[in-house]
This record gives sequence, C-alpha cells and structure tokens, in this order.
Amino acid sequence: MLAKALLPELWTEILVPVCAVVGIVFSLFQWYVVSCVKLTADHSDSSPSEDGKNGSGDYLIEEEEGVNDQSVVAKCAEIQTAISEGATSFLFTEYKYVGVFMVFFAAIIFLFLGSVEGFSTKSQPCTYDKSKTCKPALATAVFSTISFVLGAVTSVLSGFLGMKIATYANARTTLEARRGVGKAFIVAFRSGAVMGFLLAANGLLVLYITINLFKIYYGDDWEGLFESITGYGLGGSSMALFGRVGGGIYTKAADVGADLVGKVERNIPEDDPRNPAVIADNVGDNVGDIAGMGSDLFGSYAESSCAALVVASISSFGINHDFTAMLFPLLISSMGILVCLITTLFATDISEIKAVKEIEPALKNQLIISTVIMTVGIALVSWIGLPSSFTIFNFGTQKVVKNWELFLCVAVGLWAGLIIGFVTEYYTSNAYSPVQDVADSCRTGAATNVIFGLALGYKSVIIPIFAIAISIFVSFSFAAMYGVAVAALGMLSTIATGLAIDAYGPISDNAGGIAEMAGMSHRIRERTDALDAAGNTTAAIGKGFAIGSAALVSLALFGAFVSRAGIQTVDVLTPKVVIGLLVGAMLPYWFSAMTMKSVGSAALKMVEEVRRQFNTIPGLMEGTAKPDYATCVKISTDASIKEMIPPGCLVMLTPLIVGFFFGVETLSGVLAGSLISGVQIAISASNTGGAWDNAKKYIEAGASEHARSLGPKGSEPHKAAVIGDTIGDPLKDTSGPSLNILIKLMAVESLVFAPFFATHGGFLFRIFS
Amino acid sequence: MLAKALLPELWTEILVPVCAVVGIVFSLFQWYVVSCVKLTADHSDSSPSEDGKNGSGDYLIEEEEGVNDQSVVAKCAEIQTAISEGATSFLFTEYKYVGVFMVFFAAIIFLFLGSVEGFSTKSQPCTYDKSKTCKPALATAVFSTISFVLGAVTSVLSGFLGMKIATYANARTTLEARRGVGKAFIVAFRSGAVMGFLLAANGLLVLYITINLFKIYYGDDWEGLFESITGYGLGGSSMALFGRVGGGIYTKAADVGADLVGKVERNIPEDDPRNPAVIADNVGDNVGDIAGMGSDLFGSYAESSCAALVVASISSFGINHDFTAMLFPLLISSMGILVCLITTLFATDISEIKAVKEIEPALKNQLIISTVIMTVGIALVSWIGLPSSFTIFNFGTQKVVKNWELFLCVAVGLWAGLIIGFVTEYYTSNAYSPVQDVADSCRTGAATNVIFGLALGYKSVIIPIFAIAISIFVSFSFAAMYGVAVAALGMLSTIATGLAIDAYGPISDNAGGIAEMAGMSHRIRERTDALDAAGNTTAAIGKGFAIGSAALVSLALFGAFVSRAGIQTVDVLTPKVVIGLLVGAMLPYWFSAMTMKSVGSAALKMVEEVRRQFNTIPGLMEGTAKPDYATCVKISTDASIKEMIPPGCLVMLTPLIVGFFFGVETLSGVLAGSLISGVQIAISASNTGGAWDNAKKYIEAGASEHARSLGPKGSEPHKAAVIGDTIGDPLKDTSGPSLNILIKLMAVESLVFAPFFATHGGFLFRIFS
Repeated sequence: MLAKALLPELWTEILVPVCAVVGIVFSLFQWYVVSCVKLTADHSDSSPSEDGKNGSGDYLIEEEEGVNDQSVVAKCAEIQTAISEGATSFLFTEYKYVGVFMVFFAAIIFLFLGSVEGFSTKSQPCTYDKSKTCKPALATAVFSTISFVLGAVTSVLSGFLGMKIATYANARTTLEARRGVGKAFIVAFRSGAVMGFLLAANGLLVLYITINLFKIYYGDDWEGLFESITGYGLGGSSMALFGRVGGGIYTKAADVGADLVGKVERNIPEDDPRNPAVIADNVGDNVGDIAGMGSDLFGSYAESSCAALVVASISSFGINHDFTAMLFPLLISSMGILVCLITTLFATDISEIKAVKEIEPALKNQLIISTVIMTVGIALVSWIGLPSSFTIFNFGTQKVVKNWELFLCVAVGLWAGLIIGFVTEYYTSNAYSPVQDVADSCRTGAATNVIFGLALGYKSVIIPIFAIAISIFVSFSFAAMYGVAVAALGMLSTIATGLAIDAYGPISDNAGGIAEMAGMSHRIRERTDALDAAGNTTAAIGKGFAIGSAALVSLALFGAFVSRAGIQTVDVLTPKVVIGLLVGAMLPYWFSAMTMKSVGSAALKMVEEVRRQFNTIPGLMEGTAKPDYATCVKISTDASIKEMIPPGCLVMLTPLIVGFFFGVETLSGVLAGSLISGVQIAISASNTGGAWDNAKKYIEAGASEHARSLGPKGSEPHKAAVIGDTIGDPLKDTSGPSLNILIKLMAVESLVFAPFFATHGGFLFRIFS
Repeated sequence: MLAKALLPELWTEILVPVCAVVGIVFSLFQWYVVSCVKLTADHSDSSPSEDGKNGSGDYLIEEEEGVNDQSVVAKCAEIQTAISEGATSFLFTEYKYVGVFMVFFAAIIFLFLGSVEGFSTKSQPCTYDKSKTCKPALATAVFSTISFVLGAVTSVLSGFLGMKIATYANARTTLEARRGVGKAFIVAFRSGAVMGFLLAANGLLVLYITINLFKIYYGDDWEGLFESITGYGLGGSSMALFGRVGGGIYTKAADVGADLVGKVERNIPEDDPRNPAVIADNVGDNVGDIAGMGSDLFGSYAESSCAALVVASISSFGINHDFTAMLFPLLISSMGILVCLITTLFATDISEIKAVKEIEPALKNQLIISTVIMTVGIALVSWIGLPSSFTIFNFGTQKVVKNWELFLCVAVGLWAGLIIGFVTEYYTSNAYSPVQDVADSCRTGAATNVIFGLALGYKSVIIPIFAIAISIFVSFSFAAMYGVAVAALGMLSTIATGLAIDAYGPISDNAGGIAEMAGMSHRIRERTDALDAAGNTTAAIGKGFAIGSAALVSLALFGAFVSRAGIQTVDVLTPKVVIGLLVGAMLPYWFSAMTMKSVGSAALKMVEEVRRQFNTIPGLMEGTAKPDYATCVKISTDASIKEMIPPGCLVMLTPLIVGFFFGVETLSGVLAGSLISGVQIAISASNTGGAWDNAKKYIEAGASEHARSLGPKGSEPHKAAVIGDTIGDPLKDTSGPSLNILIKLMAVESLVFAPFFATHGGFLFRIFS
C-alpha cells in the first residue's frame, strides 16, 4: 500500500471550506467598497470623497469634473436601473425556458441511467474492481440527477449574480470617472473582482458540500460517488450553453442592429441615447459577456474538477481512500482563491493607476503576478496534498506517478494559459503590428480589411495550439488523463483573477455607454473609452483562457468517458471512429452556421425596427422625442430565446443520438473530432473579432501618425473598419465562445451517460449485424 | 489459392492503353472542331458558317450580330494573343522555380529512401512477407525518384496543355457568341472536353507505361514495384500545390486589385479595357482556374490510383500476381474515359442549347448521365476485372472481399460525388434560396452580407461531410483502405466530364472579358455573361468534387502510409497521436492565413499600381490612352512566385519534420488531423466564395422582382455584394482549393517516405528516452 498525503484528512475538510468562505467574504468586502460610491442624488453629492476606503487614498490624480452635478447622478441612476431591469427581465425569461429544459433533461438522466440495470435497487459488483460491491445504477441515476440540478442552479446563480454586480457597478464607474481615470478603474476592477471571487468560491463550496453529502450515502463506494458528481459538471455546462448562446445572440443582435443604423446610416455616435437599440445593446453586454461568460467559466471549472475526481476515484487515491489526495483538485482551487486574493491587492491597494497608458499593463500584471505566485502555491499543494508516489488509472492499467510529476502537470497548464493570454493580447491589441496591419488594410476598403482580419485570426491559432499541445503532451505523458484534467485545473486555478479582469471589460463598456447617454462631457467619455479599450483586450485574453482550458477539460472528460465506457483504444484506423472524427469536426461549423445566422436574422429585425423609429417618431434625430427602447429590448429577447433552441438541441442531442444509435466508438470519434476542430475555430473567431474591434478603435483614437492617416471617424478607412467590427461581433461574442461549451458539454454529457451507452449503445450497428 | 479475374492479362494490357488512346484521339477531334472557328481576319469573314461540323447543324437559333465585322475579329485575336502570352510567360517563370524545387526534392527522395538500408545494393527480405526476397531499398529510392519526376512532368504538362487549350478557345467562344448563345456554349464546352479527355487519358497512359517499364526491372517483386510507383502521385501533387497556390495568388491578386479600383472606385464595368489590371485578371483565370485545377485533379487521380495499387500489391492480387485484378484501378479509369465520351456526345450532338436557361441543366445533365452510365461500367469492370472473391490487406491481417462488395465501394464514391456536386450547386447557384438570402442581406450592408455568407459556407459543409462519411464507412467496412481508395477512384472516374464542365467556366469568363475589351455589343456581352454564370456554379461543383475526392484519397494514402510504416493502431488515447491530431488540425489554418495574406498583400500592390495609372496616365479614363498592362502582369507574377514559397514549404516540410523528429505515430495524428479539419474549411471556403459571387450576379442580372428590388448595379446593396464577392475571391480560388492539395500531399509524401521514417523517425523521442 502506498503512502498517504502529508495533509491529514481533517485539515483538508477544514481548509477547503475555509478558503471558499474567505473568497466569499473578500468578495463581499469589495462589494461594500464599491457600494460606497453613492448613486442617489438625495444624499450629499460629495459622497464619493467622504469615503476614505476607496482604495488609493484621498488625493485626486486628475481634475474633477462635474462632481457636483445632481442631475447627472440622477440620470445615471435612471439609466442603470433601465439596464438592470432589462437584464433581469431577460434572464428571468431565459431561465424560465431553460428551467423547462432542466426538468426535462433531469428526467432523461434519471431514466437513462436508471435503465442501465433495469431500475434494480440491489448493489452490484463495481465496474472497475469486480471483487468489490458498489451501489446500484439506480443510485447513480438519482444522485447524478441531483448533482445535475445543483450544477445547473449554481451556474444560473453565478451568471445572475455576475449580472447584478455588473449592473450595480457600471453607473458607479461612470460617476467615478468624473474624479479621474484611476478612480474609475478601481471601481470597475473591484466590481470584476466581486464577481470573480464570488463565482470561484461559490463553485468550490457547492462542490465540496455536495461531495460530503453524497458521501453519507455512498460511504466507501467512491467510484459511484464521483461518477454521480459528474452530473454537477453537466448541469453547470448545459446552463452555460444556453447562457452563452442566448446571451450572445441577444447582445450581438442589439449591437449589430444599433451600429448598422446608428453609426453607418445616421452617423450618430455609439451609445447615443437617440438610438432606440442603445438600451438593448447595454443590456446585452451584461447578459452576454457577463452572465454568459460567468456561467461558461464556472462550467469549465466544474467540469475539470469532475474529470479529475472521476479519474482519481479509480486510481490509488480512490482505491486507498486517501481523502486529501482525492480532493487535490479542490485544494488547488482553494489555493487559487488565496493567490488571487493577494494578486488583487496589487491592483487595488499596492500600486495605483495614474494615467491611461497604465491601465493595460496593470491588468496584464494581474495575470503575471497570479501565475507566478500560483506556481509556488501549486508546488505547496502538490507537496502536502499528495503522497510522494501513487498510481493513476490509464485506460485499463495503473500508471505510477510521483508528486513532482503532478506538480509539473498543473504548472504546465497554468503557464500555457499565460502564454495563450499573451498571444491573444498580441494579436488583438492595437499596440502591436497585427492589428495595425489590419487597420492599414482598411485603406483599400472593407474587403481587404475582412481578408486581412480572417488571415490574422487563422494565424493567431498557431502558438496557442502548440501551447495546448505541449501541455497535453507533458501532462498526458506524466499522468494520463488525470494529468490533463489537473493541467486544465491549473489553467483555471487563477479563475478569480481571470474573471475579475474579464468582467472589468463589459462594466467599463457600460460605463462609457451611461456617460454618453447621460450627456456627460467629452472628457469623461474619453476616460471611459480608455478603460473600455483595455477591456477589449482583456476580454480577448479571457476568451483565450476559456478556450484553452476548454480544450484540456474536454480531453480529460473524453478520457474519463472512454475509461467509463470500457473502451481500450480509440483507433483512427477503424471505420466507426474515422466517420465519428469527420462528423465531429463538422459539428462546430454546423453550430456556428446556426448561431451566426441567428445573429444576422435578429440584427436584420433590429435594423428594421430602429429604422422604423427614426422614420416615424418625429423629433427623434433632433433629440426632442424619446425612442421606444422597450420594443428593441423585446426584439432581442424574443430572437435570442427562439434562436438558442436549435443550436442548444444540436449540442445536447448529438451525444445521445450518436451514442445510442452508433455506439461508444463512433461517439469517441465525434468527441475527438469536435474537440480538435472546434478549438481552432473558436480561437480564430475570437481573435479575428477582437482584432477588427481594436483596429476600428485604433483609427478612432488616432494616437499615432499612422492611425491619424487612416482617420478620422467617418473617413472611408474608418467606415471599412466599422464593417469589419460589425462582422466580428457575432464571431467573437456569439459563435466563437459558444464553441468552448460545445466541445466541453458534449464530452461531459457523454461521460454522464457512459454507463447507459455501454449497456444500450450502438443500436443501429446491432440491428444490422 | 483464390481464383483469378475473368479478363485475361493480355486483354488488360491491350484495353487500358487503347482506352487512353481513344481518349486522346477524341480530345484531338474536339480540338479540330474548335479550331474550325477561324480567328484570322484574312480568311473569309463568314468562316464560322462555312463549317457544317459545328456540332448542331447550320440553322441559327438567335439573330446573328456583327459576324461580318473584320476589325472585331482582329481585336479578339489580339487580346487572345496577349492573354495567351501572359499566361505562357507566367507558367514558364513558375516552372523555372518549380523545376529547381523538383530537382532538389528528387535528391531528397533519393537520399532519404536510399539511406534506409545504407545504400546497399543487396536484395532484402520483403517488408510484409519476410520469406520472400525483394529488391533493395536503393532500387525503391531510384525508381521512386524517377516516378516522382514523371508525375511532376505529367502534372506540369497537364496544366500547361489545359492553359493552351483554354487560351485557344476563349476568343473563339466570343466570336461564336455573335451567332447565338448555343453556338458559343458548344465551343466553350468542346474546349473544356479537350482538356478533360487529354488530362484523363494522358495521366492513365503515363501511369500504365511507367508500371510496365518498372516491371521489367522489378519482375515479381510487386511490393517494391508499386511502392516506387507512389512517387508518381507525390510528383503530380507537389506540382499541383505550386500550381494551385501560385496560380491562385496570381489570379486573385489581379482580380481583387482590378475590382477594388475599377468597380468600386472608378465605377467602370468588369473587364473594361481601361482597367490596367484587366489583362492580368484574364491571364489569372487561365493559370489559376485552368492550369492549377488541371494539375490538382490530375494529382488526385494519380494519388488515388497509387493508393489503391500499393494496398493491392500486398493483398491477394499482388501475392497471387493477378495482373488484371492488380490493374483494377486503371481499368476503372479506362472505363471512365469511354463513359465520359458517350456523355459528351449528349451535350454536343444529341441535344442542343436553344436558350440561356438551358445551359445550367445541360451541364448538370452531364454529371447525372455520366454517373448513371458509369455505375453500369463499374459493375462490368468489377465483374470481369476482379476474382469473385479475394483478400485485401487490412493493417496486419487479410480480409476476404467479394467482387460485388468492391463494386459497392466504387459506386458509393461515384454517387457521393454526385451528391456533393448537387449540394454545392444548391448552396452556390442563385436559383435557390441560400444565395438569394445572402443577396437579400445586402440590404443592410456589407457586414450582414459577410455574416450570412460565412454562415452559408459553414452550413454547406453538413451534407457533403455526411456523404463522405457514409462513403468511408461503406468502403472501409467492405474492403479496408483499398475500398476507400477505389471509392476515391469512383468519385474521380468521370473526371473527364468533370474537368470539361469545370474548364468550361473560366473559358466562358475569358470569352466575356474579350467581348468587353473588344468593344462588342451589350447583347453579346449578355450571352457570354449567361455562359459565365452557369460556369460559376459548375466551377463550384468541380471544387466540391476535388475536395470530396481529396478527403477519400488522403484517407486511403494515410491508410497505406500506416501499413507501410508498420503501425497497427493510431490510438487517439496516446499523447503522441493526440498532439499530432491537434497540430494537424491547425495546419489548414496556418496555410490559409499565409495564402489569404498573400492575396491581400499582392492585391494592395495591384491597387496602388492601378490607382497610379489612373492618376498619372492622361486620357486613360476617357479611353484615349492605353493603360500599361505589362506592369500589372509583372506585379501578379512576382507576388505569386514569391508568396507561393512559404505555404509550399509548410506543406512539403511538415511531414518530413514531424516524421523525422517525432516519429510515425505523431505523423499519423497530423495527417488525420489535417484531413478532418482541412476538408471542412475547404468546403466552406469554396461555397462561401461561390455564393457571394453569385449573389452579386443575382443582383446584377435582376432576373426576378426580388433581385430587381436590390439592384441595379451601383446601388447600395450591389456595392455590399461586390465587397462580399471580393472577400470570397481568395477564399474560393486560393486558400480553399489549395487545402485539398495540402491534405493529399502530406499524406502521399508520408507514404513515399514511410520506409525512411520507419527506420530513422522519431529522433526527438529517441534522444529523450
């Protein structure tokens, strides 16, 4: 029998929830600080400066402007309320539909998994170790269903809370922008941190509690216990799918629609209050980029934990019942929360933003700091949380692994994430030549802009793929699928910081929108624009992380599925696998076709409505009449609810259909195919879109001789850039990021249903042979 | 011992070359008929009507127009000469560079393959059957090098002859257009047939002769013989790569450059003689769409034959030395030539085009007729050319196959090709709703046009992938990799007809250009436009065939490589394979990024030159001064020669680097990954581009109420459509079709070098372990 981990089980049982609670408390503290920026005009108007806790002392870096204007505060509060109400109402509508799906799918899980042993309540020999007795399949069915529901609810909660925080913070950021760009940055960043820590800690805590509760029933049957826990990942990810797709269609229909009429036809600025789609656009940022992204990253986190746990349960950790080593994934996440907490202090309390050009480095430093500290953290956790040597299940055999090897697996994932982040930044930030080349190509019109933008996206895939491939090779070689799963966890271990800088983007974007709508001065708008430009790049970095981790997570889940389905090899040289690969690689295209077409159609409707309002409401262009915001909100809502169903069905039904009719070999091929094809499209779509967006911003900002030669706003090159930006919207915010979920979700769903497929799968081949 | 084929060996030895010669004679006859359209003004001006052989009798369907205008004939002849000289000069420049490469690569093949047994001249035990003695590796090295050179020369010859024929026929088509659309159609179609039959017959004949010559040395060592023959496929395909990429960059740089200034900025029609890039544009059609495509399809044909032959040589055909069965792939191709010959008569002699709307059906009927007759032909060949039962090598074991099973393998490939063709037509012809929807989306500008176009391309992948998957499943299940190879041959068996209708497109396109440049009437231009519109769709169909067959061919080559490298399984669940898959799936993106960027950069240079000429040559816009065509031709030539090298190196070096440093397992992964990812991008890129092109033509033609509401030329929707068309150019004519070659070429190269990799491969893993 191998040695156990240094850290006693009791300590593990205490440390994990304590870290989670620390994260939640820290998040609430940040919320409190943000809430000190008062948004009610009936208090003293100087409330922000009354409060000494605002992070960076009291002295003002830049000139204050309009701080004493009561009406502006009231106006901001009003707009914020409109956005918040719009977002809340959309999310409730979305959740109503998704709730129906959840109940339906929970029933499927119960029925399909229960049918494996004909709903028998008798204990059975275990799948992997036939000499032991495990709980019946019916128990797996019941507990998988419960954990599915828990995952789904946690995911919904994560998205909803994120949205609430963001819509609470956006107007406050606008108001603080009056007092300087540094002040505004701190508010936006703290709000992002609220979301980041709340999600990370909440996900960890729910998972921890679920495991402990399930353990009461399962006792020493850890194989069954952690098999049921995978439902948590499925629940989290399936909600994320609807969140990303629904939210993505919502936000981009509004954005594209608003831009096409407002910017292109009517020549009015972005976020102009005269544009009827402007509220829908701002609501979209919150439901798509915040709620959708929150659900997505929560899903990745939940799935990588589940993948690691399910493999560990049939490795020496599970066989020896070493609880500390078993909970290694949760220990990594706990450490991550502490590391991110320290990292956050660097941005909020240790250094201070004094100028616009410091914003992007400050955000980038967050990534570097968290990665460096986390490397030490991982070493510590690997040392105390793992036995010095143990075995890992490797498709039928057990492989001996040392604790330092597993440290390397986690670390390689963590650093690969950083590399992906920086490559993404290089290709999407207008500080470097790729985006500047794209901007330059606007000289000859929209066509060359699109050709160069697409080429940029394709090219940006190269290094991330090598980074992912190296992570996979190292972690897979050292510790098989467990290694890949913990590499994914490593990449996601700094999720709190990642989410914080990611959520910072849409908050700043909204802050700019509110400033414009509230009619604040050009100067304040410039400050929020600077925040927003940095946010564009961090959003792209966040997407890079999401995709990279999704690739690793999916592979780990795929490995767990294959193990659970009892397949020894997935041989490309068999017809069943090769057709699976080919069709799997096609699915991301099918899915993207659906989501892009949905955005296009919804945007067309939006354009018609906006045009109608401009043409029929007298005085709208002059600003004497108010547009009918509600109709535009309704168009986005209806379109996204209606249009999210077909792509959702494609993703949710494919594994069920393929597994049931064609069996586990073909399903393996489909999973591998969709993984290796989807990750490429996702990266290129995100980066192409990000680059177009920033090429446009580059021309608009006119910060260099070259940029000024392309501008100003309204010039032919700028018009070409706007076209590119509009095309990029669905690519970067709808179809691209949804593909992460496609590949993860199909893998986790296959894993959950693996026992069913292993028993009843391959129906079509059975009747023909 | 199993029975032999019904057809005696002697008959096979006679039938194959006879069919090839029949094809060549038929081709020459068509050429003679085309040449009866006189292009010299010194003869009688009524020469076309003097000639009764012109296919469809003497009476004229439509009113003749300007038949007696001597100056027009002279003008057409002059333009044709300019185009032909431009194309010839470019191809000679290209072949000079490619020749250097060929010598260099021939040396690599010889050295690498010779080094396998240290350049020993002693005979060795065979690879598969150790009890027999085979020729030394040095012989394989020598003969592989020879067949590589033969393949390369045949490919170059195919492309060059195709170009010559096309530039011989284009002005003749223009002149015949004066006598009616039916007359013009027949000339263009006959010229396409010249190319189709010449290429198919020539490829078959050279392969046949090579096999027989090599057999003199190899005697009964068929394993070595057909291993050496694979060099033929490599040679054919590597020339095709440079042809497609170089020609693709040439044609699209000129096209995009000409359109951006001419159509968008100066508002002059396409092919207007005032546009300095117009000759380069027309030259481009011939070097890209004709020469490039000819080389490409010849490569596919050569490779699928080689893949089938190499697998057959280690199956019962080779073991029993059943020469007729061994040459089954060549018998299929011979039958294909006869079937296509009959099919051609349907278009040229049996039915007759009387109106514009009959053109597209006539071309589509060619596909249907050839497929139906060929199905019977395959059945016949399978019956007389195969033993009733035989065994096929299947990764280490021998699998028993019946002749009717092999018939099904070939037939499924043939019919899958037809389905792919029709799906392509549905998504790219403006007679159906997909293209009409894209055209409709131009109402809201270029951005929605691009979004809808990309979505259409993604969606168009679905059915072709299912068709390919089903072909693979059927053929793989029946006859392993031999089945897949003959399925590819089945898809390519009607290559003569496929090439004929494919080459018809650029010839008609050029004919229209010449009509415009020669200042012929609007009415004649309308007739050539109608021919061209049908040609766009058939070009897309041709690309569909090329991609579908490339997928099957690559898989067959991949299987042959795996067999030759001695790998039993390519298991996705091993780190070496999975990183290969991931990186392989990335390669098409890398390659596309290079080729698209190349087109973009070259087009920018072209735009600058065209603008310069318009700005500095006085009287150019007024038509009083002549533009400097030669400089534009030079820009396209220089750009394409320079820019084809990096993508060429990527494709040619990847298998060598991966095989040598990482070994055959990783290389297998790379091949499989690039195959399953590349085929999707290739299909979607081709169809997106084709759809944009025809959406623009739909608006321009204004043939329906809906189309007229979007037009006329110069309206905002039309401008948006032109932008889409320009973006589509590099997608459909450069990066998309080049991807076929990428996937085929890497596979055939790996196969040729398989003995080297098996001996010396995996250097990096060996030094680390």
